[in-house]
This record gives sequence, structure tokens and C-alpha cells, in this order.
Amino acid sequence: MLSHKTSYRVRYADTDKMGFAHHANYFRWFEVGRSELFRQIGLTYKEIEASGVYLPLSEIHCEFKSPAQYDDLLVIKTDLDASLKATLQFNYQIYSEDENTLVASGFTKHACMDSNGRVVRPPDFLVDVIQKNS
Amino acid sequence: MLSHKTSYRVRYADTDKMGFAHHANYFRWFEVGRSELFRQIGLTYKEIEASGVYLPLSEIHCEFKSPAQYDDLLVIKTDLDASLKATLQFNYQIYSEDENTLVASGFTKHACMDSNGRVVRPPDFLVDVIQKNS
Amino acid sequence: MLSHKTSYRVRYADTDKMGFAHHANYFRWFEVGRSELFRQIGLTYKEIEASGVYLPLSEIHCEFKSPAQYDDLLVIKTDLDASLKATLQFNYQIYSEDENTLVASGFTKHACMDSNGRVVRPPDFLVDVIQKNS
Amino acid sequence: MLSHKTSYRVRYADTDKMGFAHHANYFRWFEVGRSELFRQIGLTYKEIEASGVYLPLSEIHCEFKSPAQYDDLLVIKTDLDASLKATLQFNYQIYSEDENTLVASGFTKHACMDSNGRVVRPPDFLVDVIQKNS
Repeated sequence: MLSHKTSYRVRYADTDKMGFAHHANYFRWFEVGRSELFRQIGLTYKEIEASGVYLPLSEIHCEFKSPAQYDDLLVIKTDLDASLKATLQFNYQIYSEDENTLVASGFTKHACMDSNGRVVRPPDFLVDVIQKNS
Repeated sequence: MLSHKTSYRVRYADTDKMGFAHHANYFRWFEVGRSELFRQIGLTYKEIEASGVYLPLSEIHCEFKSPAQYDDLLVIKTDLDASLKATLQFNYQIYSEDENTLVASGFTKHACMDSNGRVVRPPDFLVDVIQKNS
Repeated sequence: MLSHKTSYRVRYADTDKMGFAHHANYFRWFEVGRSELFRQIGLTYKEIEASGVYLPLSEIHCEFKSPAQYDDLLVIKTDLDASLKATLQFNYQIYSEDENTLVASGFTKHACMDSNGRVVRPPDFLVDVIQKNS
Repeated sequence: MLSHKTSYRVRYADTDKMGFAHHANYFRWFEVGRSELFRQIGLTYKEIEASGVYLPLSEIHCEFKSPAQYDDLLVIKTDLDASLKATLQFNYQIYSEDENTLVASGFTKHACMDSNGRVVRPPDFLVDVIQKNS
């Protein structure tokens, strides 16, 4: 298991007229989580794409436990199961700043795609760096 | 079962550098679907809120079948199960313009909340109008 | 002068906690305006890009006159000055549904760029179709 | 003059199919700039709103100099003219990580509004803290 923790400040642009963060934005924050997880192991998603491998989303899910509010400093915990199959699954938990309140949890599943749009197995360089850091 | 069909044009602002629509935007389109479903039965979500009832999201899910591309005219099919429980669930299917290709499917679950933020049962006026139109 | 009028429904996702539409979204609506202006003259922006010409934004501006609210049906008026120079300028006015209240006005300026990222003069096919329809 | 510098990482969700950051997102980054400027002087915008004062946008402008790309770490410089008039104007410059390349510049103008939606003069507590820190 590969894990990472980062933080995100809720912006006015993230809120809606109900006064909380708009639900679709949680997937922007999940992206922050998995991008920084990759950066932590020395392999940015930008470099993965530059090598001709793309990780398009095949399935996404989120459950809302406690509403995130404007200017909250959230903690994003991201896990990647290192037993890589055809599909990569990231799991996320978003907490309040003091990490005592679960704000939301969810997952994203990603296919591996080459630059011609064909689904491929996760390439060796990706598998190796993930397993070495797990 | 209450059903509705509407359309949505994919905008440049909806795309990302992979060239397809960004995954978080599908939940914006689901919102278009359920808003227009309510409008069809003569009860806008704006009026529901004006009556002091809010429908915050508790769980959202989407599976991507075929990527939506810039300028595609999508067909959004929305269903609401009229056997209303504590939670309202809308199901969505997004199709290509000719309705031959499934682009994505998903659901959103909503709590009923009063203006004090308390979870309540779906109010009678809402249940009645939904069941009368199902 | 080439002119076009279309409409846009303000969605919940467009609002922020102040209760109005978030300011950055007006530029999404300006995009709806200029895209539909192109479609009206039989030349979609998708086709312009497919021909190897891009219209990246060089400058954008918006003034807010009367706040757009959730579920408002806005009228977007778009004008393109047909005396095309190196820069294309679109002007926009957004009105309330009855067109009696000016909600916002603004402009976007666009360079013409080829697929190598070089700034070029507007191509003949684009100039011709714009001037023929003005 | 009150000045502040912060940074922002361009996310995939910020990009569009042209491969660069979508133009409307620059105003999200401007918001990051002015929010952090307020936080630096010990007065968050959240607290300003809690005191019954709102700063809705009346006019926004941005010029694009060099396209921001996915995963760029941008530097956002924000200035607030401390000679506060009826309108507050923030000026922004966005630079590349090494601060050698100007990516974009712009401004936002804000009215002061009370909780009844009336335009008011900037309240003393706001004027004082801004001038003390300039």
C-alpha cells in the first residue's frame, strides 16, 4: 500500500449557494491527492504522460459525511493499492484540519491507455516505482 | 418511476488536456438532468428550496463508458424512483446524440434537509407531485 | 458586425455561497455565446481547430451590473467585429430572460494560432465566412 | 500598498483540450492571491463576511502573456491599493516558478456590500487593518 497525505484550502469558487463546497469539487481534491502521491515517489503524472501512458478515469465515487465549508483547511489522505491490476484504484479520505472529522471518502479507478487510446497493462517503470515505495 | 430526457452540448471549458470532457463535469450534467426533471413536473428545485427544503448530496457515483468530446451534443436520461424513502436516488445515463452509444452512467443520492440543517423526511408536497407524475 | 443571441440556464454548480453566480463562470457563458455564433454561420469552432487554426484568448474582461441568480434563464448576446485584424474581439452582453435588465457585459480577445503555436493572420476561410454573414 | 506572494500548482482539472490552463481559472487563482493577502494581515475574508460585510466583484480583467501548463508551479503576486475608495481594487501578476516569465496580469474590483445587499463604504475595521499593514 502506498499512502500520502496533503492539505487543501476550500476556496470561495468551490462553494455553492447552499453554503458548502459543491460536490463535484471533491474530485478536484482527489486529483490533488493522487498527483501529490505520485510526486512523493519521484514520478509526476506529467512525466507518466510524457512517456506515452495515460490514466483516464473509468469509475469514480464519493460519499459525503460532513460538509466542507469555505476556508476550511482539509486533509486529503490518498492510498494506492500496489498490487496493480489492469485497473489502478486510488482510495481517498478527506478529513477536517484536526483530522478528527471525516468529511468525505471515495475512490477513483483508472485504466492505463497508450497514446493511441488503447488500453494497456501498467508499464514496468510505473509498477516498479510504486512497488519500491510501498 | 419518473423519467426525463434532456440534452447538453460539451463546452471547451468542460474538456481537459487529454482532449475529452473532465470527469468531474459529468456531475454538472447530472444536475442539469435532475433540475429539468423537476421542471417537467412543474416544481423547480428553486421552489423546493424556497419552501425550506434542501436536497444535499450524500453519495455520488459515475462510470465512464465512452469519452465525451468537445462539442458533442449529449442526451441525459434521468430517472427518480418514486418510492421515496429517507434518501432520494436519481439514476442517470448519458448517451451520444444518436442515443446509440452509452457515454456514462451514474447516480446521486440526496438527503432531505430543513433550513436548520436537520435531516427530515421528504415533505408531502414533494412526495405528492412526484407520485402523481410517475 | 456579426451578431447572435442564445440563452443559458444558471445551474447550482454556477453559484457560490454569496448566493449568486460565481464571477468566473461568466466566461463559460461567453464561450457558449461565441460557439453558438460560429455554429449559426455554419462553421463550428471544432471545425476551425480541425483545420489547424486555434483561437487562444489573449485578454478577457467582464463588468457585473446585476447579479445572476440560481435558475435564471439568461440571454447571451454576442457580437463579432467583422473587420478582422490580427486579433478577433467578441463583445458580450448578458441580459435577464425578459431582456430588460443588463446582467453583465464584457469582451474576449483572441489570437489566431497555428498547430505549432505560432501566431498567424486569420485564415481566408474564416474571414470569408464571417464577412459573408455580417 | 499592501503586497503578498503565494504559489499555486496547475491541476489537470484546470486545463482544457488546447493543453493549457483554461482562461476562466485564472480568476480562481486571483482569489487564492487575495484570500492569502487577507490571511497574511490577520483578517480572513471569512471573518469579513462573518462581520456582515461582503466584497462582491464589480469588474474583472485578465491579460494572458505566456500560457500556464499542467503541473506548473505558479507564483501569484497580489497588491491592494490601501487608499481605499468605495471600490477595492486588487492587482495581480502571475509568474512562472522562477519568476522570470510573466504568465498573466489582471485586476478585480470589488464593492463593499452589507448583508442586505446595499453598497456601503469600506468599514473602519477593514480600512484600519489594511492601512496598518501597508
